Amino acid sequence: MKNINVILFDGFTFLDVFGPVEVFVHLDKHFKINFFSQNGGSILTNPRTGIQTKSFGEIEQNDILLVPGGFGTRELVNDEDFIRKLKELANRGEYVLTVCTGSALLAKTGLLNNRNATSNKLAFDWVTKQGPEVNWIRKARWVVDGKYYTSSGVSAGIDMSLGFVSDTISKDASIQVSKFLEYIWNEDKDNDLFGK
Amino acid sequence: MKNINVILFDGFTFLDVFGPVEVFVHLDKHFKINFFSQNGGSILTNPRTGIQTKSFGEIEQNDILLVPGGFGTRELVNDEDFIRKLKELANRGEYVLTVCTGSALLAKTGLLNNRNATSNKLAFDWVTKQGPEVNWIRKARWVVDGKYYTSSGVSAGIDMSLGFVSDTISKDASIQVSKFLEYIWNEDKDNDLFGK
Repeated sequence: MKNINVILFDGFTFLDVFGPVEVFVHLDKHFKINFFSQNGGSILTNPRTGIQTKSFGEIEQNDILLVPGGFGTRELVNDEDFIRKLKELANRGEYVLTVCTGSALLAKTGLLNNRNATSNKLAFDWVTKQGPEVNWIRKARWVVDGKYYTSSGVSAGIDMSLGFVSDTISKDASIQVSKFLEYIWNEDKDNDLFGK
Repeated sequence: MKNINVILFDGFTFLDVFGPVEVFVHLDKHFKINFFSQNGGSILTNPRTGIQTKSFGEIEQNDILLVPGGFGTRELVNDEDFIRKLKELANRGEYVLTVCTGSALLAKTGLLNNRNATSNKLAFDWVTKQGPEVNWIRKARWVVDGKYYTSSGVSAGIDMSLGFVSDTISKDASIQVSKFLEYIWNEDKDNDLFGK
């Protein structure tokens, strides 16, 4: 059983989180999902939901990190305490998955330097500035480089999560979850209709 | 500005809610999203999130209802108080949108009788028993009958929501949101790869 620790922050994008969560929650023999934020407590969302988190300091077992994107990343890349703690968690983690502009946060830690990664296409120019030494790939639904999985914008996180399940459990598991969600899985990570 | 009142209950499916919410939140000149439940308060989810709701009695402006599915519907169809209140809200609403087994709840109110509707394909036999007088359509990504929009399982809710935006605002708005979400919109509601 692996812990998936979802990193939340004010202004994260709902679907970046709850797309992947909906994939992993159906594989509850393999994954346990937990929500964390820098200081714990309630997260500011639009619309307001009251979503609660524990603090980074309360993470007991750090197997898989899931880092979403969202407008909140624009400020967070400049939060040295957050970036330092994210680097520590990502370094220790077995796998790190980012969705959308979540890769900007990870890039800012330096851990993606000289690695392949992708991100949201509409925010691509901003994201790449957060990690000038990253080998950014514009045309990819998601990118795998070692333990780092980075996906393109929002709904690409669902495809990446199914890809991660396929890589680490079985392709059959991904197909079963796709059917359950009535989701047409884009299983080719290089097939990206939104990248140029 | 229309209110979208999302009806939550213990054991709803995350993606049924946060797929559509992610569509509507990007059209915040048109829609305001609120979360309600039968008695208000915290909703039981897996994983736990702490999501908070107001009670049905606190609904001030009832324009559009969004009713998700989930395992919780299995008990809720037998909750006479819930079904009676849902019927009242749905009757008053301008539009009612259901995702997945949310259509079982709406069917139970009787408001779908002699109307076309669809639902989750894996739970189809159970759903149809909740509304024997509904004209259930097995092969449809989503179905529109008057003010009632019913979608197939989980991710079909995103396609339906984009369809609803196309019908009530503009197709261009749907295309813009799809691009923002890097989502390949299945815009043909009759194109259903999961129905038999």
